Amino acid sequence: MRVKMSPGGPEVSRLAYGAWRLLDDGQGADVQRVLTLIETCLGCGITTFDHADIYGGYRVEEAFGAALKARPGLRQRMELVTKCGIMLVNPARPKTWIKHYDYSRQHIVESVERSLSNLGTDYLDVLLLHRPSPLLDPDEVAEAVNALVTQGKVRHVGVSNFTPAQVDTLASRLSRPLVTNQVELHPLRLEPFLDGTLDQCLQRRMSPMAWSPLAGGRLLKGEGQAESRVRAVLSALARQYGAEMDQVIYAWLLRHPANIIPVLGTQRLERVTAAVRALELKMDTQDWFAVWSASSGAAVP
Amino acid sequence: MRVKMSPGGPEVSRLAYGAWRLLDDGQGADVQRVLTLIETCLGCGITTFDHADIYGGYRVEEAFGAALKARPGLRQRMELVTKCGIMLVNPARPKTWIKHYDYSRQHIVESVERSLSNLGTDYLDVLLLHRPSPLLDPDEVAEAVNALVTQGKVRHVGVSNFTPAQVDTLASRLSRPLVTNQVELHPLRLEPFLDGTLDQCLQRRMSPMAWSPLAGGRLLKGEGQAESRVRAVLSALARQYGAEMDQVIYAWLLRHPANIIPVLGTQRLERVTAAVRALELKMDTQDWFAVWSASSGAAVP
Amino acid sequence: MRVKMSPGGPEVSRLAYGAWRLLDDGQGADVQRVLTLIETCLGCGITTFDHADIYGGYRVEEAFGAALKARPGLRQRMELVTKCGIMLVNPARPKTWIKHYDYSRQHIVESVERSLSNLGTDYLDVLLLHRPSPLLDPDEVAEAVNALVTQGKVRHVGVSNFTPAQVDTLASRLSRPLVTNQVELHPLRLEPFLDGTLDQCLQRRMSPMAWSPLAGGRLLKGEGQAESRVRAVLSALARQYGAEMDQVIYAWLLRHPANIIPVLGTQRLERVTAAVRALELKMDTQDWFAVWSASSGAAVP
Repeated sequence: MRVKMSPGGPEVSRLAYGAWRLLDDGQGADVQRVLTLIETCLGCGITTFDHADIYGGYRVEEAFGAALKARPGLRQRMELVTKCGIMLVNPARPKTWIKHYDYSRQHIVESVERSLSNLGTDYLDVLLLHRPSPLLDPDEVAEAVNALVTQGKVRHVGVSNFTPAQVDTLASRLSRPLVTNQVELHPLRLEPFLDGTLDQCLQRRMSPMAWSPLAGGRLLKGEGQAESRVRAVLSALARQYGAEMDQVIYAWLLRHPANIIPVLGTQRLERVTAAVRALELKMDTQDWFAVWSASSGAAVP
Repeated sequence: MRVKMSPGGPEVSRLAYGAWRLLDDGQGADVQRVLTLIETCLGCGITTFDHADIYGGYRVEEAFGAALKARPGLRQRMELVTKCGIMLVNPARPKTWIKHYDYSRQHIVESVERSLSNLGTDYLDVLLLHRPSPLLDPDEVAEAVNALVTQGKVRHVGVSNFTPAQVDTLASRLSRPLVTNQVELHPLRLEPFLDGTLDQCLQRRMSPMAWSPLAGGRLLKGEGQAESRVRAVLSALARQYGAEMDQVIYAWLLRHPANIIPVLGTQRLERVTAAVRALELKMDTQDWFAVWSASSGAAVP
Repeated sequence: MRVKMSPGGPEVSRLAYGAWRLLDDGQGADVQRVLTLIETCLGCGITTFDHADIYGGYRVEEAFGAALKARPGLRQRMELVTKCGIMLVNPARPKTWIKHYDYSRQHIVESVERSLSNLGTDYLDVLLLHRPSPLLDPDEVAEAVNALVTQGKVRHVGVSNFTPAQVDTLASRLSRPLVTNQVELHPLRLEPFLDGTLDQCLQRRMSPMAWSPLAGGRLLKGEGQAESRVRAVLSALARQYGAEMDQVIYAWLLRHPANIIPVLGTQRLERVTAAVRALELKMDTQDWFAVWSASSGAAVP
């Protein structure tokens, strides 16, 4: 269950928990509820928590941090990933009038300081640049993150949703290797398997993190043709492996040689604990291609 | 006629013969017929024979090997290329129920052992990975092929139908450079000239092999608009150069600076011997672009 | 206003003047008129002039050179960029019957000699390969340009309209780094910001040159949906910054971290002098993204 994200990178759990939708269910930021979620994750070996400054309209980090503050021993039992760079039009950021990106040195540093404060910690295990920006200056970013690393506020740096060219360019300026590229990865999105994104992760020995591993629910409930085809195959595999659909989907991602780290987004605690069983499902190669071919709509060439 | 496929690669003939369709004409695997074909090729300087485990429903290698066994001196007068990795749904492989790829260490080794046995030889000049697989683990492949190279069973390694990112990733793990990327190349398929595939061959000094150099007959008989436009230009060039259409097409490929090696697929012996004349046709630059522009449907930008 | 095009590259002005349309207005090649244009540029700090052998149907270089010959001190106050490689169907080139490219050693050398003669100078500051050619042999090009550099006829080498793979391949053979990639860049063409072109410029520290920075007038007068959306934003920004539309467009390009060098194509002297003010407009990040989002038709992801 424990893996190195990259040769010089952090040790993380093979499954991560994503706090993206932590406040989406309208139940608010009740500390006890967040504590239960955290303990459930830690109890089944999920120690890596994925955040972003913007999640929940800039409020998730703080809600999560309140739990950490309430139970001081927790922080050292987990790895915290958070992100910066997206600027939302949101009451919490009155100066922002259009959605944009900001990778100025000043913004990166301020965003990290704010995340540290919100999360109630003095270091991030991994800082990710949330999305590539056409205005990203790799020299300026390198200056900012190198300073944060030197100060111990950030231990490792990665990116999210970057193309291979964007990764190469940024990496050429950083003093240490990037540890991950977090991208949307699931059986309905085959592009990253084909367009060089996962090839680059293999070449650079970065474990990709997979956001929306269940395709935001489309795999379980979507009604498009590809969705229906893939679901039919997944259902058959679930029966065959004696597993649930979501476990089969995670196992499909885990089977890839790049050591994909699925980021679980579910709010249902029983799906979190159940997910861990995916680590034991060794998906057969032909079964893997059955899912692939159902998604692409054709046999492989 | 003899060229190095890459600086440290094998010496091969500038035209290769492709055994893909060896059994397609329903005449079966008569040894004498295969011997005649081989002698015809060797007689006109075509010494490189292109195979794959799967050709002819897993039966071409054996038919070809029967001829080599019948005439033991032949093997040392030729170079043998074969491929592995595609798993066909075929009576010869009852465990395969869906077309897929297998680049596990075990499969690569077994596939090569079987090819050696079928071909009646104790070494392959070049082993190609037949198609990129989303599950290809470059470390595992490197282990397998490095072992085969060390044992002398495989002298050189290449790929087929790989993107530049896939080549770079695999190459980063191999102890020796890849010697070729065999791709579909002909005047109706301009993508590899534009998408980095041939640029990478130039940069890495790998000679690409061109499969379906006549576009599977479409160039000679196809009725689409691009096909008709290109054929009109090729016909005019054939008259002008005093050559046949197929010779002009090979000459068009041979004119490229990457040292493209066309893989002849014809079963007609007179087209094999005639093909060699393409090596003497030095295609004029403007003529080359006339074919290009007929294919793309517009003058170059 | 003065910048290094790349670490070992030439010092140029941050805005360049493009001679592309010098003869387009039907006023002919009057020496006095060209002298006035040159003096206007130099007077406001625009010292870099962008040419190509083919501009004006192979006549612009000569018209420009006539002015330099008439006023011998001028040459040393400017940087001359010119290009080679495109072969136009044109009365001046009777042997060319189809538009094509020629990057043979002989043609490159002859083209440069002719440009030097036309321009009345004994050196080019920068030679660009005008467009990528599917027949470009990087070894042959390297031989040609290395010889020209050694002879002092060409001081620096760059490319134009090249993909990243084409740049990498050529660069792998040259003895010195490429100094620029001149591409079509403006708010209606976002591809180079996304497809690796500008990432590569950042990584290799080449300043890209932007041709058609005003989109050939489409930004000011085009009636398409994207054009109308972008123009509405640019108009608002022009009012806000107290500037003209063209200045705002140049400022948008200048804001990019790759140090884009816009190539002004206007024939109107007052637009040339006005353009320089763009260097003082520091475009706000959100304003920059307002233009971007108007062009793409959606908020950034």
